[in-house]
Amino acid sequence: MARRSHFKIPRIPEMTVRRLSVYTRCLQQIEEDGVKTISSQDLAERFSLNSAQVRKDLAYFGEFGVRGIGYYVSGLKAELQRILGLDREWQVALVGFGNLGSALFHYKGFARQGFRIAAIFDDDPAKLGQAAGGVPILPLRDLPREAKARNLQLAIVAVPAESAQPVTEALVGAGIKAILNFAPGRMRPPKDVRFKSVDLSIELETLSFYLAQGTRA
Amino acid sequence: MARRSHFKIPRIPEMTVRRLSVYTRCLQQIEEDGVKTISSQDLAERFSLNSAQVRKDLAYFGEFGVRGIGYYVSGLKAELQRILGLDREWQVALVGFGNLGSALFHYKGFARQGFRIAAIFDDDPAKLGQAAGGVPILPLRDLPREAKARNLQLAIVAVPAESAQPVTEALVGAGIKAILNFAPGRMRPPKDVRFKSVDLSIELETLSFYLAQGTRA
Repeated sequence: MARRSHFKIPRIPEMTVRRLSVYTRCLQQIEEDGVKTISSQDLAERFSLNSAQVRKDLAYFGEFGVRGIGYYVSGLKAELQRILGLDREWQVALVGFGNLGSALFHYKGFARQGFRIAAIFDDDPAKLGQAAGGVPILPLRDLPREAKARNLQLAIVAVPAESAQPVTEALVGAGIKAILNFAPGRMRPPKDVRFKSVDLSIELETLSFYLAQGTRA
Repeated sequence: MARRSHFKIPRIPEMTVRRLSVYTRCLQQIEEDGVKTISSQDLAERFSLNSAQVRKDLAYFGEFGVRGIGYYVSGLKAELQRILGLDREWQVALVGFGNLGSALFHYKGFARQGFRIAAIFDDDPAKLGQAAGGVPILPLRDLPREAKARNLQLAIVAVPAESAQPVTEALVGAGIKAILNFAPGRMRPPKDVRFKSVDLSIELETLSFYLAQGTRA
C-alpha cells in the first residue's frame, strides 16, 4: 500500500523504534474497533501522541499516508510489524529460571509478538533436566550447541548480578546477536551484539518524580 | 552546591525524567570510581549520552554546572535523587502475587532506590494470610484500610489482564496516587492518578528491529 524506499535505512534513534512499537499497538486497537483509515491527527489525538512526531518517525521508512485519506490502518500496521521484525518468529534463549526468569517465561506478551522462548538455561542442579511448558532447562555449557541446533537469535538474561557478565560473554560466544538483560548492576556491554538492559526501577522513578513534584508544589 | 530555582517546575517531558534516572546511575558509577568532578562532555562520552541533551535536561531544574569545573559528582547525584523523589522512602502496594508479582517483590532494584513494598494484595485463597519476607498478603477488600494505615502511595499491578481494570479502580478509590501496571491488554487509564503501563515486549522489539534491519541490509 505504501511507496516504500528500499535503500539501506539510516541510523534510527532508539526512541523512534520504541514509538513504532507503540504505534503498532495503537493501530491494532483501532483495527479491532473496525476503523479502516485514520489521519495522523486523529491517531495522535486518540492516543495522546504528537502528530508531527508520528509523521517524522514514519518518514524514516517511507511514505505511508495517502492524501485526503490518511493511513490505511491494517496496511500500516503490517508495514510497521515488518519493519520491527514482527512478521516472523524469533527463537529466544532464556538464561536464569529464578523468580524473574520464570515470570518472563510465562509473560504472554512475548509469544504474542512472535518471540518464542525455545530453550531455558540454568545451572541450578535442582532445575536441570526439567522442563517448563515443554521447554527444556539446560546447563549453560550446552549453550553453543543448542544455540545452533535451535537457531537461537535473541537471549533474555535474568540471572543474579554477579553472573550477568560471564553469561553475557557466553551468549556472545555462542553467536547470539541480541541480548535483553534484566540483571541489575554494572555491565560492560559486549561488542558486535545488540545489548539492552532493562532497569525496572526507572519506571517507578518516573512516578515518584511526579509525586515528589506534587508534594512540593 | 547549585543555584536552584524554587519556582514551580514546568511540564517536564517523561523522557527527560527517564534520562534523569539514567544520569543518576551514571553519576553513582563515577562516584564509586572516586571521580569528584566531571564535565558534561566527559559524562556524555563515558556513557554514550548526548552532552547537549544532558545540559538541556538539567536546565529544567536549575544551573548545576560550575564554569571551568563541570559538575560536582556527589552534589549533582544528590540533587537529581531529590528531584526524582529518591531522597525518601516510598511505601508501595503490590497487587498480584503470581509469577510476575513474586519476581517484582524480590527485585532488588526497587528497595535500593527507596521503593519499599509494604503490603501485598492477592485474593487467591491459597496465599491469603501468608507473608513474603515479612510482608503480609492481604485480600483486596482490605485495600482502603491498609492504604491509609500503611501510608501506601504507589502501587505495582501484576494481575492477569482481565483483573487489571477493576484493580486499578480499587487502587484509585483507596487514594493511591501513582500506579505502575504490568498487566497486558487494553486499559482505560484512570483520572487524577499517575498511571504507567510497562510492556516488556517493546524492549524485545527494539532488538528484533535491529536484527531485522541487519538481515535485510
